[in-house]
Amino acid sequence: MQVWELKESFGLDRLARTERPDPKPRHGQVLLAMRAASLNYRDTVVVEGGYGPRVRTPLIPVSDGVGEVVAVGDGVDRVAVGDRVAPLFFQRWYGGEARQAKFHHSLGGPLDGALCQLMCLDAEGVARVPDHLSDAEAACLPCAALTAWSALAVEGRVGPGDTVLVQGTGGVALFALQFAKALGARVIITSSSDAKLARARELGADEAINYRTTPDWDRSVKDLTDGEGCDHVMELGGAETLEKAIRAARIGGTLSVIGVLSGAVARMTLPLVVMRNLRLQGITVGSRDGFEAMGRAITAHRIRPVVDRVFSFEEAPDAFRHLKSGQHFGKVCIATQAATA
Amino acid sequence: MQVWELKESFGLDRLARTERPDPKPRHGQVLLAMRAASLNYRDTVVVEGGYGPRVRTPLIPVSDGVGEVVAVGDGVDRVAVGDRVAPLFFQRWYGGEARQAKFHHSLGGPLDGALCQLMCLDAEGVARVPDHLSDAEAACLPCAALTAWSALAVEGRVGPGDTVLVQGTGGVALFALQFAKALGARVIITSSSDAKLARARELGADEAINYRTTPDWDRSVKDLTDGEGCDHVMELGGAETLEKAIRAARIGGTLSVIGVLSGAVARMTLPLVVMRNLRLQGITVGSRDGFEAMGRAITAHRIRPVVDRVFSFEEAPDAFRHLKSGQHFGKVCIATQAATA
Amino acid sequence: MQVWELKESFGLDRLARTERPDPKPRHGQVLLAMRAASLNYRDTVVVEGGYGPRVRTPLIPVSDGVGEVVAVGDGVDRVAVGDRVAPLFFQRWYGGEARQAKFHHSLGGPLDGALCQLMCLDAEGVARVPDHLSDAEAACLPCAALTAWSALAVEGRVGPGDTVLVQGTGGVALFALQFAKALGARVIITSSSDAKLARARELGADEAINYRTTPDWDRSVKDLTDGEGCDHVMELGGAETLEKAIRAARIGGTLSVIGVLSGAVARMTLPLVVMRNLRLQGITVGSRDGFEAMGRAITAHRIRPVVDRVFSFEEAPDAFRHLKSGQHFGKVCIATQAATA
Amino acid sequence: MQVWELKESFGLDRLARTERPDPKPRHGQVLLAMRAASLNYRDTVVVEGGYGPRVRTPLIPVSDGVGEVVAVGDGVDRVAVGDRVAPLFFQRWYGGEARQAKFHHSLGGPLDGALCQLMCLDAEGVARVPDHLSDAEAACLPCAALTAWSALAVEGRVGPGDTVLVQGTGGVALFALQFAKALGARVIITSSSDAKLARARELGADEAINYRTTPDWDRSVKDLTDGEGCDHVMELGGAETLEKAIRAARIGGTLSVIGVLSGAVARMTLPLVVMRNLRLQGITVGSRDGFEAMGRAITAHRIRPVVDRVFSFEEAPDAFRHLKSGQHFGKVCIATQAATA
Repeated sequence: MQVWELKESFGLDRLARTERPDPKPRHGQVLLAMRAASLNYRDTVVVEGGYGPRVRTPLIPVSDGVGEVVAVGDGVDRVAVGDRVAPLFFQRWYGGEARQAKFHHSLGGPLDGALCQLMCLDAEGVARVPDHLSDAEAACLPCAALTAWSALAVEGRVGPGDTVLVQGTGGVALFALQFAKALGARVIITSSSDAKLARARELGADEAINYRTTPDWDRSVKDLTDGEGCDHVMELGGAETLEKAIRAARIGGTLSVIGVLSGAVARMTLPLVVMRNLRLQGITVGSRDGFEAMGRAITAHRIRPVVDRVFSFEEAPDAFRHLKSGQHFGKVCIATQAATA
Repeated sequence: MQVWELKESFGLDRLARTERPDPKPRHGQVLLAMRAASLNYRDTVVVEGGYGPRVRTPLIPVSDGVGEVVAVGDGVDRVAVGDRVAPLFFQRWYGGEARQAKFHHSLGGPLDGALCQLMCLDAEGVARVPDHLSDAEAACLPCAALTAWSALAVEGRVGPGDTVLVQGTGGVALFALQFAKALGARVIITSSSDAKLARARELGADEAINYRTTPDWDRSVKDLTDGEGCDHVMELGGAETLEKAIRAARIGGTLSVIGVLSGAVARMTLPLVVMRNLRLQGITVGSRDGFEAMGRAITAHRIRPVVDRVFSFEEAPDAFRHLKSGQHFGKVCIATQAATA
Repeated sequence: MQVWELKESFGLDRLARTERPDPKPRHGQVLLAMRAASLNYRDTVVVEGGYGPRVRTPLIPVSDGVGEVVAVGDGVDRVAVGDRVAPLFFQRWYGGEARQAKFHHSLGGPLDGALCQLMCLDAEGVARVPDHLSDAEAACLPCAALTAWSALAVEGRVGPGDTVLVQGTGGVALFALQFAKALGARVIITSSSDAKLARARELGADEAINYRTTPDWDRSVKDLTDGEGCDHVMELGGAETLEKAIRAARIGGTLSVIGVLSGAVARMTLPLVVMRNLRLQGITVGSRDGFEAMGRAITAHRIRPVVDRVFSFEEAPDAFRHLKSGQHFGKVCIATQAATA
Repeated sequence: MQVWELKESFGLDRLARTERPDPKPRHGQVLLAMRAASLNYRDTVVVEGGYGPRVRTPLIPVSDGVGEVVAVGDGVDRVAVGDRVAPLFFQRWYGGEARQAKFHHSLGGPLDGALCQLMCLDAEGVARVPDHLSDAEAACLPCAALTAWSALAVEGRVGPGDTVLVQGTGGVALFALQFAKALGARVIITSSSDAKLARARELGADEAINYRTTPDWDRSVKDLTDGEGCDHVMELGGAETLEKAIRAARIGGTLSVIGVLSGAVARMTLPLVVMRNLRLQGITVGSRDGFEAMGRAITAHRIRPVVDRVFSFEEAPDAFRHLKSGQHFGKVCIATQAATA
């Protein structure tokens, strides 16, 4: 099969299209003919070698994708040949709370990822995806969608009457917008681009704030919430946004801490957290149970992931460059299936 | 009645013993003959005028105390004359999650506090205290004990098999130690004093770390927890301890963010929170429901608050100085009753 | 003021229109000029004297209503003159879990209820209602709406992707339908009337089952849920429906046990509960926190309670008769305000 | 290997000692040399053919046991050769809430159980057991202990200050007693035997009621809880005890519905559940996450399961008879290892 891999060293220019032997499913395993992959910010860090010593070459990068089950080993009854499934980012976080042992086996580093034609995985490590989604749309679910779902529905318990603040219009942000609406909440979204804000409104955002023209966006959020602050913040910005995010939250509110785009080391004024009874919840993708619950919600609400652009398998490095450019609105995908033809 | 008050300006040297008219309970109210008060770090900040513009003079400081119901207004059936009760720090946080409206009415600033002979409060704003406690012991419950209880039992859901890290041996810390043991957990405590650590062991601490002789105490915590890290951290230190506290917690663990002693503005490495799925939960005392549940636990386990020293009503300013000295182990109390004699 | 009361004995024919002195608000109290009341099944039981020895005459019946604050006593800052508020069914269940002490003070028995022109209550015992509701609509919230909200949102944690089974088209049932939709869930509703089912579909029900023509409605529910069963059942029927409700729920599902219309003593096959890991949650109205959260959801989703008919104050006994007839679809209300004119 | 199996039909007299080929672990699997098994009431039902059409012959009965890993297939890193592990009752309920797909693969019917010398299982379907336990003690954990743990710690959230009512002194009951104490709760236990009550007191029970001499034990429970009722009931009796169990619980309390010994079809007075806001939670063993958390608690508290008697492998049918006799106090075990010799 054809794969894109980092053979001996990291760096986007080292990402090479190579040939590997076709894997065969053993007891308890499934073989997937991959159809599409999608990129996350994490993938760009991995490819550049910035993900720490546990992630080593040779490596097939990219955690998220979708494929069709084309063969199963003995003892598999969880899925069947013909099912369209997504590999789960954490191969062994089936459900329940996060613990160390559940975090060991993650795709796209340290384990091989989805930028390939065939994947062989434990049957327990895949889950069906909603029928109404295109392959590219379905490929967006494992990390980006599940992170947003875990934040709002699993940890956040957001509901009707709540106001959710979503930072930006990246992959996780747009899923958060869609899920928050499905959960019955009101959504305030921020961006530096009025054009993107307009598109977010079309997707259901109730309020939109341009943080460039409104640098005191935390006050705007308070004004939009009767002075109390919002119930939930999708904190995707990182060091530059955390302090304002804390100020934008209501007493007793929650921040889902997810992003580090603007910097990894933040300054935090502790009394604002202590005296306002805030919860800061780090979100690390999520479990298979969460993925399946999310799938039911996506199906019931006919939610369609926002795909910015689908690159061909051959263009994979261009897809990475496009993601880095920050021009996108929604997910950047790769049609791995195309390569099969 | 006699009171200690800040009449026109803040500062410990302005704290003056004065006379105020005896209050009378109206419909729905109770009159308490105060027996004891206890000091919290917050009280020292309030007295020095450092608690912000909502806290104004004239003010009777000190939030925590205990008294006997000596008269009730019409319509009171929640408590009766003769009951020994504590005023609740948040007079209107009866139960459920923290919200702005529940935080408005707090004792010892902006509302008058417990450093007086008589308090007149809404019957809804007091709660009975366990019988086996002395007055000084009972006076420690409203803030210090309830903060520890909210952190571990209400928000933290700590249980047997869990390991709790407690920083220091102050008032909240020692309650945390006692409650964590009652919840069935294992406790690791830190201090800069071997003598205090020895006393903490007598109170039930399973492991003790001198953070002065073991500056890498986060690694010690990991070593004591099979390399995983602890389930819960009582983060009482503030800016100087937060980063290590984050490293000492296990994947999926919780930090109760409470203290700011070593500094209010902390540096936080976001990926440690995001990728380890940590929860940082700001703790702001707690609700009446929590107070009552805590009372049941204290009664069932015959827990006795650790009282360092009881000052007389006349010595109230000395009590503040003693707290500031950092020499204490446990709570610094004031026998308000003595003044009645 | 004018009231309807049961002066010396129970029975709908003993319900008499009488005069009582106008109450005056004392410290901590508010005076409400009542505008509307609404009837619940409970009110009919109370009026007939079937509610047990704690409910005694003289009694102003009917728990649910809405009024305008026309005067406040000293020390009230929670609401102000001019606010439109509802009296809370449990005057002292402010938040948190159900406990005995929170259940003592309920309106419409043992305490006087809303079938009157003026009510004097503790300020803590009322809550604002959404602006977009008519008086009759707002009068439906205290019991019927809050019961449905507590079942689905507080205890049930229903969300998108879940399927909720609602039995019938009574007051609680229609609120359950509306709230389940706001929570993002799919709703299956049952009734013996195709006409009522058609109206329920207009209100958002996704599936409708006539239990008269489909006596095996539990199987229909399974068929509509891929054979698994539904996530949540609003068990409103009582003895005659419980067993099928249990069979209609999925493994790990929840039944909100609320109604006793078809009988109070049910037969329950325990292994179905044990081996299917079912939860049966008794629902008893709910707390003030729940009421306020519900109000935010009603406001955000512009939900309008379904009012079947509004009787005048003079016609109050007819309103009771109408409720008993079972002809209604939605709530039966009484315009208490009309009496003022 | 030697096994006890029901070859062609059910019935304790059909349980035969036979020979089966030694299994070999494949990819993802582990081979266990079994050391001990323990019996549950369920096993007696299965052996008599009373467990429904999904459980068929040929079948090796008995769900609970413990063994040593003696070989592992490829791709196994969860456990290693030499580890002592228990097979999990639900082979695929790893964590999170109960759902149908997690319930399909249960041991001792429909899948082969632990009454054998060797078991070959997916590595995901076993979990390590605490070191301080004997083999017989460790063999008691998969169903009996986990059921009690799920009831009290996972679903029940029992804590210090709570009172737990435990019915009887069977396997689940004694684990419930031990876990409730580890959780910090107070325990009231019931039995028809004063001798068994005395032994329960030695194990930590705070109060003991002989339900034969005190048929109104529900009133006794209320008397022992200030008239409120207990927080949690381990409902193990079934049809004959449910109604009194409901009356013994406090408003807002929980009943863990587990047992059906005295009858499977119960009578339930719905208003007692509705108006007292009770929760009846069916408990079906539990998940692997629960098992591991329980193991940490057992280790931390040095809890030792109460083993009534250990039969040899040859005496397996006698072990079943002993369990049926009701003479036992604690668990009836079988030393499967002995057979290896």
